[in-house]
Amino acid sequence: MGRTEIKDIGEFRLIQRIRDRYSKPSEFVPRGIGDDAASLNFPPNHLLLVTTDTLIEDIHFTLKSTIPYLLGAKSLAVNLSDIAAMGGIPRFFLLSLGIPKGYSISSLDRFYRGVSQLAESQGVFLVGGDLAASSKFIINGVVIGHCPPDQVIYRKGAQPGDYIFVTGPLGDAALGLEILRKRGLRPSDFGANGKTRGKDKELLGIIRRHLSPPARVREGRKIAELACATAMIDISDGLLADLRHLIEESQVGANLWLDQIPRSEAFEKWAPLYHLRPIDLALSGGEDYELLFTAPKEILEDKLSRSREIDLPFYPIGEVTPHSKKLSLWTKEKKGYSPSWLGYDHFRGPPKRSLKKDPQHS
Amino acid sequence: MGRTEIKDIGEFRLIQRIRDRYSKPSEFVPRGIGDDAASLNFPPNHLLLVTTDTLIEDIHFTLKSTIPYLLGAKSLAVNLSDIAAMGGIPRFFLLSLGIPKGYSISSLDRFYRGVSQLAESQGVFLVGGDLAASSKFIINGVVIGHCPPDQVIYRKGAQPGDYIFVTGPLGDAALGLEILRKRGLRPSDFGANGKTRGKDKELLGIIRRHLSPPARVREGRKIAELACATAMIDISDGLLADLRHLIEESQVGANLWLDQIPRSEAFEKWAPLYHLRPIDLALSGGEDYELLFTAPKEILEDKLSRSREIDLPFYPIGEVTPHSKKLSLWTKEKKGYSPSWLGYDHFRGPPKRSLKKDPQHS
Repeated sequence: MGRTEIKDIGEFRLIQRIRDRYSKPSEFVPRGIGDDAASLNFPPNHLLLVTTDTLIEDIHFTLKSTIPYLLGAKSLAVNLSDIAAMGGIPRFFLLSLGIPKGYSISSLDRFYRGVSQLAESQGVFLVGGDLAASSKFIINGVVIGHCPPDQVIYRKGAQPGDYIFVTGPLGDAALGLEILRKRGLRPSDFGANGKTRGKDKELLGIIRRHLSPPARVREGRKIAELACATAMIDISDGLLADLRHLIEESQVGANLWLDQIPRSEAFEKWAPLYHLRPIDLALSGGEDYELLFTAPKEILEDKLSRSREIDLPFYPIGEVTPHSKKLSLWTKEKKGYSPSWLGYDHFRGPPKRSLKKDPQHS
Repeated sequence: MGRTEIKDIGEFRLIQRIRDRYSKPSEFVPRGIGDDAASLNFPPNHLLLVTTDTLIEDIHFTLKSTIPYLLGAKSLAVNLSDIAAMGGIPRFFLLSLGIPKGYSISSLDRFYRGVSQLAESQGVFLVGGDLAASSKFIINGVVIGHCPPDQVIYRKGAQPGDYIFVTGPLGDAALGLEILRKRGLRPSDFGANGKTRGKDKELLGIIRRHLSPPARVREGRKIAELACATAMIDISDGLLADLRHLIEESQVGANLWLDQIPRSEAFEKWAPLYHLRPIDLALSGGEDYELLFTAPKEILEDKLSRSREIDLPFYPIGEVTPHSKKLSLWTKEKKGYSPSWLGYDHFRGPPKRSLKKDPQHS
C-alpha cells in the first residue's frame, strides 16, 4: 500500500471520513457535519460566546517544526483559550482547513486525532467546517461556548487598586520557539500521539509549550465562579501586549512588578542560553495562553480561603492604577524598565528596535 | 496623500478601524469585536445554527476578476445561504482574513462595505474575526443563526413521491464564470459600490450572479414557515452534486426533468455562445445559491394557495423515488441523459471526462 494523499480520496469522501471518525452525535448536537449548517442545542438563559482564530503555514507555524497531532491540538487550544478568558464553557468547535493536495491522509488523521482528543477531554464537539485545496496549510478554528450572564468577564472593568494576576509561569512558549529556531525539531522528539519521546525531557517540555499550548478552561471557570475578577484576557500576543489591551479597554493604567512574574524552573535554566534578556521572553514572547485577570486583592484572597476545593495558582504581578499613569514596569530595585521589544504585530512583524538591540534576532 | 497599505496601519489599529466602522453595538451583541470572544444574546428555545465557508485567492477567486465590494458581499452571502438552507434566521457574522501586507486600506474598506451593506439588509451583526498577514488573500466567514426546532429543515427527510423544487433559475453563475474567463473583468464594468456600470447590462448581470450571489434567506424562512418541506439544501456545488447530497442523506433516489429546470432569459441568449452544452452549466456549474427542496406537491400547493401574501417562485424539477432508483436525468422526450461533468471536487478539480469532451475547457 502506497502513501495515500488527499487528492486520491477527494473532498466528499474526506468529509465523510471526518464525520464518521471525529464528529459523534450527542444530545447537544441534533445535526453536526453533513448538512448545510450544524444545528445545536443551546442552554437557555446563557450568553452565547464565539471566537475564531486562524493559523497559516509559514506565518504561524511551519510543517517542518511541528507534528500533525500537536498542530491539531493547538488549533483547538488557541480558541478554547479565548472562551476561557471570558469565564465561559466551550461546547462546539468548527474546523476549516486549506490543505495542499499532496498532504497525506495519515498525517491528516493524526491532525484530527490531536483535535479530537483535546476536544473530548474538554467536552467540546466538532460540529462542522469547510475543506478546500490550498497551496499552504491553513487552519481556521471557531469555538462556540456559553456562560451565565452574571459570570462573564470582559477585558473592560478593571479598577484602580485591583491587583493583576496570572495563572501560571510566562515565557516558556516564546523560549520554546527560540529553541525550535536554533535547534530544530528532530524526528525522535515526539511520538505520533504528541508525547515527548527524546532524552531531553525538560527541553522538549519547553518546546511543547509552544507547539501545544494549554487552554486554561478550568481556571477560567473557577475565576468566573469566584465572581470577583473585574477584567480578564488570555496571554496570546505577550504579557505586555495583552495587558495593554486590557487596560485600554478598561481605561486604566498599570504597574507591573517584573520580579513577581512567575517563570518555570526549566525557563530559568535554559532561557539564558537562548536569549540575551530572558525577562523579555516572558514580557513580550506571547503564546503562553495563561490567563491574566484583575481583582480586588482582599476579596479574592477571602473568597479563595473560603472555598477550600479550589487549588489554583494565582500569581500577583502588579496593580491597576488610574488611566493617566499608563503602563509602567518596575524592577525589584524599584527602577523603571524598558523592554527590548513589545510583541508581534501581524502586518509589521517585530518592531525594528528589537532587531537592532538583540543580536540573536539578526 | 499616498496609497496607504495594511502594513502602514498595523494589526491593532486595523482591528480598531473595523470595530468603529462596521461592528455596531446592539441589544443582540453585549460585546462584539474588542474582546477575547464575542458575547451574544441568543433567543430562548431556538436551535443554534452555525456554518462556515472559506474563500481562498487563486482557488475560489482571483483579485483580478472581482472587485473588493462584491468579494466582501460574497463572503457573507455564501454563509447566509447555508443558514437559509436550514430554514433559519441568520443573526451573527465572524470574518477572518489573511491579507497580503501590500493590500491597500481603501480596498479593504470597500471589501468591508460590501460585507456590511449586505449584513445590514439581512439584520446580521459583524461580531468578530481574526486578522493575519498572508501571501494570498484568505477569507473565512462564519454565520450563526437560529430557528424554532419544529421549523428546521435538514438534508435528510425526503420521501419517495415528494416533488423536487428550486427557488430560481440555474446556470447563470457558472455562465458568469465562463464569461469572466474568456472576456475578463473590465475596470468600467462595476462601480466601487458593486453596481453594474458598463453598457452590457445583461452580460454584466450574469457575471454579477457569479461575483455576488444571492442568499435566499427570505425564501428559506417562507419554506420553513409553510412547514411542508421534507428536506432542503442550497445549490453551491451544482444542482447534480447537491441533489446527490440530499438524496444520499435521505436515502432515496430521484428523477430529474431536464426541460423543467428554470433558466433565465439572459442565460438562454448567452449560454450557447460560451458553452457547448448549456444544460450542463445549469446541472453542474454550481454557485447559483438557489434553494433546492423536496415537499409533497399537493400539500405545498394547498398551503401556498391559502397563504396569499407569499410571492415566491417554486419550480418543480423532478420527483423523489425509492433509494434503489438512484439519480436519473430525463429529457423532454423521456430519454436518459448523461451530463458531461458532475461538479467540482476541491482536491481533484473537474473530472477528466469533461476536459476531453468540451474543447472550451482546454
